[in-house]
Amino acid sequence: MRIAILGVGLIGGSVGLAARDGCESPEIVGFGRNPERLGRARELGAVDIVAGSLAEALDGAGACFCCGPVGALPEQIADVLELAPADCVVTDVGSIKRDIVEPIHDERFVGGHPIAGAETAGVEHARADLFRGAVWYLTPTERSSGILYERLHRMVVAFGALPVAIDADSHDRLLATVSHLPHVLANVLVAQAALALTEEDSALPRVGPSFRDATRVAGANSSIWTDIYMANREAIAEQIEAVAARMSDVAATLRAGDAGAVESWNEEAADCRRRLLEADLAGGVVHELRLTVPNRPGIVAQVALALGKAGVNIVDLALAPAPDMRSGAMTLWIGGDEQTVRARELIGELGFPVAAP
Amino acid sequence: MRIAILGVGLIGGSVGLAARDGCESPEIVGFGRNPERLGRARELGAVDIVAGSLAEALDGAGACFCCGPVGALPEQIADVLELAPADCVVTDVGSIKRDIVEPIHDERFVGGHPIAGAETAGVEHARADLFRGAVWYLTPTERSSGILYERLHRMVVAFGALPVAIDADSHDRLLATVSHLPHVLANVLVAQAALALTEEDSALPRVGPSFRDATRVAGANSSIWTDIYMANREAIAEQIEAVAARMSDVAATLRAGDAGAVESWNEEAADCRRRLLEADLAGGVVHELRLTVPNRPGIVAQVALALGKAGVNIVDLALAPAPDMRSGAMTLWIGGDEQTVRARELIGELGFPVAAP
Repeated sequence: MRIAILGVGLIGGSVGLAARDGCESPEIVGFGRNPERLGRARELGAVDIVAGSLAEALDGAGACFCCGPVGALPEQIADVLELAPADCVVTDVGSIKRDIVEPIHDERFVGGHPIAGAETAGVEHARADLFRGAVWYLTPTERSSGILYERLHRMVVAFGALPVAIDADSHDRLLATVSHLPHVLANVLVAQAALALTEEDSALPRVGPSFRDATRVAGANSSIWTDIYMANREAIAEQIEAVAARMSDVAATLRAGDAGAVESWNEEAADCRRRLLEADLAGGVVHELRLTVPNRPGIVAQVALALGKAGVNIVDLALAPAPDMRSGAMTLWIGGDEQTVRARELIGELGFPVAAP
Repeated sequence: MRIAILGVGLIGGSVGLAARDGCESPEIVGFGRNPERLGRARELGAVDIVAGSLAEALDGAGACFCCGPVGALPEQIADVLELAPADCVVTDVGSIKRDIVEPIHDERFVGGHPIAGAETAGVEHARADLFRGAVWYLTPTERSSGILYERLHRMVVAFGALPVAIDADSHDRLLATVSHLPHVLANVLVAQAALALTEEDSALPRVGPSFRDATRVAGANSSIWTDIYMANREAIAEQIEAVAARMSDVAATLRAGDAGAVESWNEEAADCRRRLLEADLAGGVVHELRLTVPNRPGIVAQVALALGKAGVNIVDLALAPAPDMRSGAMTLWIGGDEQTVRARELIGELGFPVAAP
């Protein structure tokens, strides 16, 4: 099948590489505004052919992925639907969906959004496994062709992702909470910290992981994020106001000096986090294990291999090296009670202390 | 010198191990409520002697570290000052300082707080290098003995930490912003996300790094954090209210639909983050490099060694493996413009693509 990719950055390039790995005899055609980037994509194997025009890119295509920036997508998709063959499924990868999906009444279009957060942009960072294990939202409407939806679904599975159908409104509200809101909070937090340091006339301490983690996405790429904030502004504003109200409640609880209420609030958060973890990392109850390990080559492999050999599935893992890089904290998420017990034993045998917070 | 450690968990145990490594002929005496934990501390080499009473622990001590939980510290410190020798410096490691320091009018006492965030508790996780490169706040008052302050300062340096003198009030306000507030935001965010999922009747997507990072500390250990929230409640409430006000402004900006204002706000956050990074990672301008690497044993070592050989100093580093662990993002912070250029070259030579966001 001929697959057209419009815009070959991190996501578009990864779609190309994933299609090459996962789809049957793909012929991948790239098109975009930047000839240099297209050339690089071809060097990297993300596209086979660089098209000279949109019409050429779409000629004979069975699928088209619109990978332009969010603000440019409505126009890009409209242009594609003008030129694409009648049996070509057209999709996009924009991180908001309502404004993109609502105006389109063409049966060939199914909106999409892979949750493949990468901290890096550009086709140089594209990889065939970027979507592996990631949710890939699809937003079909009652107008979407069933056959074309099925084709897109199969492709997403072939990329190693988990297709999840959701209506565009729900998608945008959900993403407002789990993605856009954390970005807002990070922005607000760095602004507040910068003010505090000025007021205290103090240097920032090496603040440790809580501040660094909470602000890693602060001031994310404006050329991407301004579009996202604008396109989803109503849902984001609602979430911000809900969170601001929660915060006022917390401030009142603190000022009232009621330790029991503070503890209950914190315990509820612990409970919410646990439930979110379980929901996030599907497959039943997921337990979190934290271990301290020396920061030397091969440690991750040693732990992964020991658990893998015993059939224990590491659902997810995160590393946090100490500042001097001599040691570090490793967090593992293990699915299932029995597997978690086994994981603790195995890690203990390797000589690394384990805490389950 | 005889060093008394009261409470041998992660921090107390690490003080013992760091003193053994860094101080001259230390004799480390441990005391606490839990005999089993004390025994474990002795096995691990964190203490030489387990004392049978507080008086025995303090007998002949030149320094005493009070490492009890924050809520128990005022009483623990008062008891110690009753029994400690006249030339013994007494300090604590509590993460709030005003409530602890203010009532004490004894020249032997100097409050302290090592910023050694660890995601794990318990003496099993104690390590000699826990404080290496970390800021260790000291809160001397006009009543504190100069000689004893100097002794404590030297010990903190011997532990590999960076002693920073600060008054207790400023400390608490600063920590309210850079540590306690991120915990509050994480708690609020998980509660909001849990509600959103219920309302949307949806499973949480594998949300990617922004949500996970922002909520890693949500619902942190209540037995520690209730004390912290209560002890610093005024400063935290002020910070919460300031942040809530900022958020209302952001919501209003979004609702007004002014893309220019949204972009300016985001750019200001980017600027704040840059300034905080520079302040945090002292030593001039620090640049952030993000690279994509295969997730195999030895990669961290390969990068570290290549940069080390060329004299490029990695100020800090963070790893984020992809869900399937086949690849990952590595973020490096490099001090200085020239070193950063050199680092980019060297990493390029290793074949890993680099992005500087």
